This record gives sequence, structure tokens and C-alpha cells, in this order.
Amino acid sequence: MKIGIKIMPREVILDSQGRAVEQSMKMNGFSEVQDCRIGKYVEMNLSLEDKEAAKLQVEKMLKEGGLYNPLIEKFEIQLM
Amino acid sequence: MKIGIKIMPREVILDSQGRAVEQSMKMNGFSEVQDCRIGKYVEMNLSLEDKEAAKLQVEKMLKEGGLYNPLIEKFEIQLM
Repeated sequence: MKIGIKIMPREVILDSQGRAVEQSMKMNGFSEVQDCRIGKYVEMNLSLEDKEAAKLQVEKMLKEGGLYNPLIEKFEIQLM
Repeated sequence: MKIGIKIMPREVILDSQGRAVEQSMKMNGFSEVQDCRIGKYVEMNLSLEDKEAAKLQVEKMLKEGGLYNPLIEKFEIQLM
């Protein structure tokens, strides 16, 4: 089954990339942009059929496999 | 309102970063990973209350503001 992992910088962390995009959008006339943060998105195909099992396995992967840095990032698993 | 934009490499494009993560996960014992692709995720706060208006504005931003490269990437807007 296919699973998506959204990895975003934590709120307390200054996201310079997001800040740059925000400024650039404002300069290009998109004045309605108030805040912008940029993270990663990982899409994985797993040979598991059970949603809960897949979710648990992805959580394990995130924590043990070094896919994200818990000090500065947070993650959200999206089933697709 | 808050809006999310998922930007992923197109299927026809070789995603070397995703390939590397896939190999690394397999080497770390996560043999159930079949395929992995890595993209970007942009979260924006817009000073617009209407969902449809926000969506249209984000699409305009993506196309005119250079937030993504249509030749090698595809996007998906997620309302939050």
C-alpha cells in the first residue's frame, strides 16, 4: 500500500527557506501570503496490506532509519 | 486559511534521493519498502477565507511564482 509522510520544521524553528518564499511571493504581488513553511514529503510503496501495520512500520522507519530529525522536525503520516 | 501544497517529482523522472532512501531502508532491515519518492511540502497561511479563492490563488502562485517546475514536478493542493 501507498503511504505519505509529511515532514515539517517545528514551529519554534526558524525556517529560512519558507521565509524566503514568503518574501518572494509578496514581492511578486501575492500580498495575501501571511506565513510560509517548507518541509519534505516522502511517498512510499510498502508490501503491507494492513493500514495499521504499515503506519507502525513507517513510524519505526522514521525513528530508527534517520528519515527525520525529531529535534527540529515533526512528521504526519497520510494513508493514500 | 491554511493551505498545503505537495510537490512531487513526476513518475517519468528518476528520483535519485528517493532511490537512495529506498536502498538505505532496505539495508536497515525494512525490506517491505518497494518504492520511495521524495518531494517538497509547502504550508501557507493566506489572508483569504474562501477555500476556492485560496485554491485558485495558490495555483496562480505555483504557475507564476516559480514554486515548482512543471517539466519535472507535479503538485497537489491540500486544504487544511
